[in-house]
Amino acid sequence: MEGSKSHMWLKSYRLQTPGLWVKAVLHTTGLFLMAPVLMTSTPASMCTPLKTLNDSLSHRRRYMKHNFPINYSIRVYREEIFKLSNISRMRLKVEELDDLVLQRLWFQVNQGVLKKIIRVMSERHPSRSYTAELERRFKDVEGVFVQSHPAEVFQQELPEAVQDTWDHLTEEPDRVPETDWRLVSPKSLVDNLCHTMYCLFSECFDTETRQDYCGVSRLRRGKKTSSRNTDTEPAE
Amino acid sequence: MEGSKSHMWLKSYRLQTPGLWVKAVLHTTGLFLMAPVLMTSTPASMCTPLKTLNDSLSHRRRYMKHNFPINYSIRVYREEIFKLSNISRMRLKVEELDDLVLQRLWFQVNQGVLKKIIRVMSERHPSRSYTAELERRFKDVEGVFVQSHPAEVFQQELPEAVQDTWDHLTEEPDRVPETDWRLVSPKSLVDNLCHTMYCLFSECFDTETRQDYCGVSRLRRGKKTSSRNTDTEPAE
Repeated sequence: MEGSKSHMWLKSYRLQTPGLWVKAVLHTTGLFLMAPVLMTSTPASMCTPLKTLNDSLSHRRRYMKHNFPINYSIRVYREEIFKLSNISRMRLKVEELDDLVLQRLWFQVNQGVLKKIIRVMSERHPSRSYTAELERRFKDVEGVFVQSHPAEVFQQELPEAVQDTWDHLTEEPDRVPETDWRLVSPKSLVDNLCHTMYCLFSECFDTETRQDYCGVSRLRRGKKTSSRNTDTEPAE
Repeated sequence: MEGSKSHMWLKSYRLQTPGLWVKAVLHTTGLFLMAPVLMTSTPASMCTPLKTLNDSLSHRRRYMKHNFPINYSIRVYREEIFKLSNISRMRLKVEELDDLVLQRLWFQVNQGVLKKIIRVMSERHPSRSYTAELERRFKDVEGVFVQSHPAEVFQQELPEAVQDTWDHLTEEPDRVPETDWRLVSPKSLVDNLCHTMYCLFSECFDTETRQDYCGVSRLRRGKKTSSRNTDTEPAE
């Protein structure tokens, strides 16, 4: 399901913010009444592949923790530790940050993360086929994401802070300074993928099955974070 | 099957060489004609548990390689890399080195190695029960080994070079200098255990099923090492 556009948009930098583009369309078409529908951050078509991905993610404890040695960690870029706190920080740092920008970043980060996890396993590792399935399902979501938005969305300039993160993610490994590498467990990386998915595509997950993972909405609603299962809490 | 003596002998240092003790018995009893039988380095009773251990070891590729991440390594003491070349070196270094001394060292080294491999896995790791079985079978062999020899054998002084190795093996981890640690894959460690077992307890393995793993006999017989399966060759 991976569309031909998906590779293209992952390589497009320094474009305009999607928020501005949506506003421009609304102005020229005069469809202000449709604004709440158009402005929703997750197209409904994404919910099916996202839920399928979520089904796979529910087995991550077994495949990303038990099947690996105790304290095993993978070397990743600092920016690949993309947690709920990073989303909150970016939202505070960048004014009127569009969810679509964060969603694009989510795809870019986790594409690299899944690749790195797969690379540490031989074909016969008991978590190999699970992770390959996770990657396939992730690409299915990405395909629908790309198809659900006009190509121009992915050519729009990113805010500077997001662009900096993006640039670091796409840096050649041998040009990354030693201080920009981190050692993280596979389970933590997939936990991050999962929790940020609940936050950035919250419309697809009902409030009963998902917890309130989105940093900003947690702050707004004044909920306590202590009730969350610390076992699945990602560690840096 | 682990006898009560087995713990005791693992803690006894600076004793006399077993070779001298066997010779003393031979002199006092005058049983020179029986010397070839008494001098055999592996008591026949050890063959059954050794073969059982060997059965488990035949699955080491799957459980010690495939179930671990690529290039995964365990931190061990330098002396825990106890390979065929170490045996050859010790035999060259120490004159008239008794096989019993090397066998005692083999038990001491691999007891620690198996413990360290088990420690890196959680209860639910797919290689955990295999390694626990390996350890049980290893202890069975050790039990028979201890029971097959008079207690005095284990109180005899070790040659200086062997004693030094032994002392390093029993050193407290926090007192081991950084330069004395090595990173080795679990598969290499278990390969070492296996190949040195074939060498030190060769009487228990028939020439068809085992290869000629013993460094000294290889040199004596002038065999080429290139015919050995390089895939199972331990790497330092």
